[in-house]
Amino acid sequence: MGKETVNERAGLLKKYIEIRELTEVICLPLEIEDYVIQPIVDVSPPKWHLGHTTWFFETLLLQRYSPTYRPYHSLFSFLFNSYYESLGTQVERSRRGHLSRPTVKETYIYRSSIDRQMHDVIEDIAEEHWSDFSGLVALGLQHEQQHQELLLTDIKFILAGNPLRPVYRRGADPTISVETADPLPSEIGYVTVPAGMYEIGFRGEGFCYDNEQPVHHVYVKDFLLRDCLVTNAEYLKFMADGGYRNFRYWLSDGWELVQKEGWGAPLYWLKIDGVWCEFTLSGLRPMVQEAPVCHVSCFEADAFAKWAGKRLPTEVEWEVAAYFSGAQATEGNFLDNAAHHPVPLGNQRTKNAQLSQMFGDVWEWTASAYLPYPGYRAAEGALGEYNGKFMMNQMVLRGGSCVTPRDHIRISYRNYFQPEKRWQFTGIRLADDT
Amino acid sequence: MGKETVNERAGLLKKYIEIRELTEVICLPLEIEDYVIQPIVDVSPPKWHLGHTTWFFETLLLQRYSPTYRPYHSLFSFLFNSYYESLGTQVERSRRGHLSRPTVKETYIYRSSIDRQMHDVIEDIAEEHWSDFSGLVALGLQHEQQHQELLLTDIKFILAGNPLRPVYRRGADPTISVETADPLPSEIGYVTVPAGMYEIGFRGEGFCYDNEQPVHHVYVKDFLLRDCLVTNAEYLKFMADGGYRNFRYWLSDGWELVQKEGWGAPLYWLKIDGVWCEFTLSGLRPMVQEAPVCHVSCFEADAFAKWAGKRLPTEVEWEVAAYFSGAQATEGNFLDNAAHHPVPLGNQRTKNAQLSQMFGDVWEWTASAYLPYPGYRAAEGALGEYNGKFMMNQMVLRGGSCVTPRDHIRISYRNYFQPEKRWQFTGIRLADDT
Amino acid sequence: MGKETVNERAGLLKKYIEIRELTEVICLPLEIEDYVIQPIVDVSPPKWHLGHTTWFFETLLLQRYSPTYRPYHSLFSFLFNSYYESLGTQVERSRRGHLSRPTVKETYIYRSSIDRQMHDVIEDIAEEHWSDFSGLVALGLQHEQQHQELLLTDIKFILAGNPLRPVYRRGADPTISVETADPLPSEIGYVTVPAGMYEIGFRGEGFCYDNEQPVHHVYVKDFLLRDCLVTNAEYLKFMADGGYRNFRYWLSDGWELVQKEGWGAPLYWLKIDGVWCEFTLSGLRPMVQEAPVCHVSCFEADAFAKWAGKRLPTEVEWEVAAYFSGAQATEGNFLDNAAHHPVPLGNQRTKNAQLSQMFGDVWEWTASAYLPYPGYRAAEGALGEYNGKFMMNQMVLRGGSCVTPRDHIRISYRNYFQPEKRWQFTGIRLADDT
Amino acid sequence: MGKETVNERAGLLKKYIEIRELTEVICLPLEIEDYVIQPIVDVSPPKWHLGHTTWFFETLLLQRYSPTYRPYHSLFSFLFNSYYESLGTQVERSRRGHLSRPTVKETYIYRSSIDRQMHDVIEDIAEEHWSDFSGLVALGLQHEQQHQELLLTDIKFILAGNPLRPVYRRGADPTISVETADPLPSEIGYVTVPAGMYEIGFRGEGFCYDNEQPVHHVYVKDFLLRDCLVTNAEYLKFMADGGYRNFRYWLSDGWELVQKEGWGAPLYWLKIDGVWCEFTLSGLRPMVQEAPVCHVSCFEADAFAKWAGKRLPTEVEWEVAAYFSGAQATEGNFLDNAAHHPVPLGNQRTKNAQLSQMFGDVWEWTASAYLPYPGYRAAEGALGEYNGKFMMNQMVLRGGSCVTPRDHIRISYRNYFQPEKRWQFTGIRLADDT
Repeated sequence: MGKETVNERAGLLKKYIEIRELTEVICLPLEIEDYVIQPIVDVSPPKWHLGHTTWFFETLLLQRYSPTYRPYHSLFSFLFNSYYESLGTQVERSRRGHLSRPTVKETYIYRSSIDRQMHDVIEDIAEEHWSDFSGLVALGLQHEQQHQELLLTDIKFILAGNPLRPVYRRGADPTISVETADPLPSEIGYVTVPAGMYEIGFRGEGFCYDNEQPVHHVYVKDFLLRDCLVTNAEYLKFMADGGYRNFRYWLSDGWELVQKEGWGAPLYWLKIDGVWCEFTLSGLRPMVQEAPVCHVSCFEADAFAKWAGKRLPTEVEWEVAAYFSGAQATEGNFLDNAAHHPVPLGNQRTKNAQLSQMFGDVWEWTASAYLPYPGYRAAEGALGEYNGKFMMNQMVLRGGSCVTPRDHIRISYRNYFQPEKRWQFTGIRLADDT
Repeated sequence: MGKETVNERAGLLKKYIEIRELTEVICLPLEIEDYVIQPIVDVSPPKWHLGHTTWFFETLLLQRYSPTYRPYHSLFSFLFNSYYESLGTQVERSRRGHLSRPTVKETYIYRSSIDRQMHDVIEDIAEEHWSDFSGLVALGLQHEQQHQELLLTDIKFILAGNPLRPVYRRGADPTISVETADPLPSEIGYVTVPAGMYEIGFRGEGFCYDNEQPVHHVYVKDFLLRDCLVTNAEYLKFMADGGYRNFRYWLSDGWELVQKEGWGAPLYWLKIDGVWCEFTLSGLRPMVQEAPVCHVSCFEADAFAKWAGKRLPTEVEWEVAAYFSGAQATEGNFLDNAAHHPVPLGNQRTKNAQLSQMFGDVWEWTASAYLPYPGYRAAEGALGEYNGKFMMNQMVLRGGSCVTPRDHIRISYRNYFQPEKRWQFTGIRLADDT
Repeated sequence: MGKETVNERAGLLKKYIEIRELTEVICLPLEIEDYVIQPIVDVSPPKWHLGHTTWFFETLLLQRYSPTYRPYHSLFSFLFNSYYESLGTQVERSRRGHLSRPTVKETYIYRSSIDRQMHDVIEDIAEEHWSDFSGLVALGLQHEQQHQELLLTDIKFILAGNPLRPVYRRGADPTISVETADPLPSEIGYVTVPAGMYEIGFRGEGFCYDNEQPVHHVYVKDFLLRDCLVTNAEYLKFMADGGYRNFRYWLSDGWELVQKEGWGAPLYWLKIDGVWCEFTLSGLRPMVQEAPVCHVSCFEADAFAKWAGKRLPTEVEWEVAAYFSGAQATEGNFLDNAAHHPVPLGNQRTKNAQLSQMFGDVWEWTASAYLPYPGYRAAEGALGEYNGKFMMNQMVLRGGSCVTPRDHIRISYRNYFQPEKRWQFTGIRLADDT
Repeated sequence: MGKETVNERAGLLKKYIEIRELTEVICLPLEIEDYVIQPIVDVSPPKWHLGHTTWFFETLLLQRYSPTYRPYHSLFSFLFNSYYESLGTQVERSRRGHLSRPTVKETYIYRSSIDRQMHDVIEDIAEEHWSDFSGLVALGLQHEQQHQELLLTDIKFILAGNPLRPVYRRGADPTISVETADPLPSEIGYVTVPAGMYEIGFRGEGFCYDNEQPVHHVYVKDFLLRDCLVTNAEYLKFMADGGYRNFRYWLSDGWELVQKEGWGAPLYWLKIDGVWCEFTLSGLRPMVQEAPVCHVSCFEADAFAKWAGKRLPTEVEWEVAAYFSGAQATEGNFLDNAAHHPVPLGNQRTKNAQLSQMFGDVWEWTASAYLPYPGYRAAEGALGEYNGKFMMNQMVLRGGSCVTPRDHIRISYRNYFQPEKRWQFTGIRLADDT
């Protein structure tokens, strides 16, 4: 084994350990009881996340590459498979919260057992398998990071639905006082992107998901993209103007949801004694007007945009503008900041780019359906089920959020959810025609 | 305080402590995770049972009789009220399993805090309130015992639905071997009860629920009541004869359920490699053919009876026959036996009565709808919601089960469930016309 | 063939023709379109009623007794069987309104074809089969009469749900003006029935359903039965007193329905410009306060009784009181009166009985679940499915209604519906303990 | 009024009369009963279509432009509005089949009354309003044509669900015998379209919907488009190869539907005695293997494509290829042919274009979500609700079908339905990367 290889292995092992540990750190503030429940079908019990990410390594890595592999438990594949039909049957999604066993402790033991075996294989695997193997480990770690975000998102929902309003973690005080006279960013601007042929898709080195490729050309008309996110203060104006009561702003399916679900504000908003409050991972607190609006569905984002006389950007526009403005995916309010909530722009405008808040804070709904890029082919086998089979009835979101790990996001990263979902950290950036 | 009073108080305190402790003993084998989930709406999380029974004492006793009473927590009434509209709003029943807090530990602390206060009040309450107070405590303890049964019933469902098939408590081996040539009771007989005017309803001293009164006269035709319960072996014959596939045996609503739910055997039955097994609180084990059939709905009990050319007894017949035969409610396989499962009759025929297995083992479905006795009036206030408001679309069950505390059951005791329910320990006794 | 036989046959033929014609007369005011739809699963399209009653004669009479019988159409048994599993499969009940064919005209042709054949068989069947045959024809005619009532009930629902509020038949003006000062019957009284052993069940000659037998003894405590029905005026007082908003009056399942369905008045009540109106088969018209309240569920009847400090009678009490008071089933406001709506008592008090309005006007909800009488055995074959298999989760109603044919009702007649149903002509009579 | 104007008015009047009459001609074969029912929520009663298209002219034309306008009936706007929130409330969509009135006859009278008034206004409207008015009439006629297609689509569903399998119209015999040895088109080819910048969207004169605009540039990679539709024979191979049982071919939501709905063949396919038959508007008949497969969902189209190693074209590719190949929207099997069913290609290859069957026969599912074109702005007022508010969770279909009027379709025409719908005449054209 050459020195280079040794270093590479050490690097991967370090990263493996760091990322796997972070998942457990995220769960530290939880009570055992918090790990088990599933209040809506979208929200998985934290225990399930812990087991599922571990199963991913057991099934896709150890089973293939460990010479001494034996299934950890004959039923864990059934219990912790999410949706990989090619890897066997799985517990019905809606029943994840019906299972009190394995216990949380047993699930942690499962994790550490698999981790020990992973350590060994990372160190000992034959050189000839290294390339395939390390590529798959990288995927497993990206997968783990996605579940780190989901864990915090689901924990928030689990706690928010409890009348006791438990706090996940006492947070820093909001950085900008609630009484600020004008809660809007001092200067809202729009960046003009000229028409032309652009290239989008992942073109760097390192990891990307299959859905970010192939790189391909697109022709884009000139357009405007707003240089900051929509704030709570602006959203309150929409509400005050009867936004939720006027069908004119709404897509047909969205209007139906407004009636049926009684939507009248973003998820987690609560008016207490005349004061709008927000439930956050730091508990219930008065709304920070300057902060980006969060936990809105794509229908709400679209209605807000129509009310404002604007529109949502397409994902192509978003990506083109990001490149055009020189935005860097490393700048932003991410999981690493531990705010766990979008923060006001304040004086934090991005230094070297015209567009601020493009990364972190909130996932930005786009006007693009989640569909394959021209020339896209899903991978063979289980990995082919990772992204491709969800390309219907979902909308693309861009830019990551305040619970996305910083090194997980990319300019070409395509997240996707059904347009009615609100429990993710999702917000609004406006676009316009020139 | 006279000596008599002192003794009476000491007696009640002792009973209070014993019964409240038993509830916790029942939960001892549980993992924290088991306390939290609600796989179907009928099944409450064990944590909720612990809180609810405590809330009962807090709200109906301490709030009225403790001079120093202050609410333990402003939201616990909302969280732990079951269905008492007169005591305020309550968490929607289907959402009991969506609440991870208060934690199990916090719930136990709630219990012990309320218990300490209850001890004080039992000892110190003014003589003039003693009669009302001690009557209500008695009711609270009966209520607690009902939830002891429900706890075990719900725990069974929670564990049974888990593919890991967790064991609540390793049980004694089944007392009668599976290979017994003839698994039917050696002599099945029917007791003939002559026609006549009888009196039914609670007429003793001590506690009874309001629905067991008033005592009243009924005229009953002569009838036959089988002297033992229907066994698994007999039920298997019904199944082998196509009982679940022949509409002729079924009430219309039952036949619809058979189709819709795919019923083909009692709940918790599982055929493994050609062998019928049963999930019990001691885990999955081969069926004991001589044991009473358990976990059947009223529709199944009725269909079995039709198939056998018999019928279910009315609750009046059941009670009349119990008196007539001299059956004692203290004899039987109860919670106190810790079998947690119905047991074969074997040589355990009741000594001094012609009817065996009338008490314990399984609740016996009757052909009677749960309706008020002539002259019944529900109590005023919250207690009036205890029984009376459920008198529609439910059927009466009699005799208690293997998870009923021995000193909770009475000959006049009326249990009731919707005819489609199967998760209770419910079985079959046949009757016939002469 | 003796003269007696000839007369008997002529009599049956005459009755057959009369009753079958009445069904068609009932449908005369309908438009073709009214025959086809099924706005809720309970309400069958009138076309289906016409076909189903005909199918009954084809299948149970012609198929058995006509020497030249050939099925009219290979699919009509599937299309027009209601719920007789022993007579083959059937269109799912909820899909009856999905079938535009056979057309109404074709259905009438089906009727007349079967009728012609029935005429022939009534005249020509061999003497030896006469007894069985004529018994079955009688049953078929009773069945036809039940569907005459259902036709009008369903037609009312079909028209009432239409915003155009079509009129079935212009009616006579309400006999008592709306402005009457005191809309309550001048003297409301209660008849006292003494305790004792009584006999109930059908004991006359002629036809009865199997569920009215066997005749059997019952012991009844002394009780009071009100001598007239509850009026709209009284029901309005219940409403004005917050009856629909106070859980104390309601059974648990009823209270849930009040919330879920938004019940706030009987079905078909509508407040227009501050005036309570009722949709009737003669169209929408101002409420007649003195008329019996109609179209209430058993839950509403029970809640009203609790509010009034009374209770509903059991079916045993109802039948005993009817005999005791000498009420005659032939007196009352029936289909034959063509009012198609309950009418105020006014001066129409029954002459020779203390109890008025016992028959006709509205079916009276009782406090009795629909269960078999002691010794009841369902008939063999298809007829056994007529009544017996519905003996679960339904409540007994007594006395017939304003759309029941006069010669269809009997003192021992047991009608039954689920307690939440409101589209039948159902009302309230109160009882009380002495 | 100049001569030109006179001619223009005469032309519009002629067209108005022709199109409105065709709607009634389509309904000629119906029985009254067929007009009324709504077996699933997607399928509107034909009576409703007749009323709704008339309401469109009444509300959008007469109400604005007729000096003598008075509402025909105060409730018809409520009864016949589909989804135009700006034009008032409307009958809940799922309740259209609950309304027997107005009768079919009354609905026809409504039509002719509105038509007479429309004739007058077309002839007499002031010159200054002519331009706006005639544009709106054109829209109303396009709307009418859309409902002509929907009428036939819905009639097919209504008849198909009836066990009597009624025939709408006896059709010509299938033109190609069923026994043909090789049912595939003799030469299946793919047309190669070179990469480049193209322009799509409506750019002609005459009518188009707002969603076909603005014309805009798109860059397209080179791609292949199949020169004919997928046939029943090919689809049968997919089925025989286990296409409906292999998750690998399916999008996640599609696979769920396959399980839940039990999909195993296109809608209206039925295997009778081992022979695949299809229900058509000419009744049930043996499948014509060479005919294009029809009544598949987008999920099935996509799964078929994946199985075949191809993919669906995007709407951009479809439109570009159509222009590129010189396909004419006037050639094809349309409503005007009165086949009412897709027909085999046979020797009917399009003369002057490489691509056959691009228009007519079946709507071709594309891989494109239905979204606004760059720069799209919905119209003001009610017309803005025509297309724009449905731009979510629907997929674009192109090319028209055998029940589309020939002069209704255009190369730029965008139809759209949810991807799970199967009751439309929808089929498959394959594409591929080069």
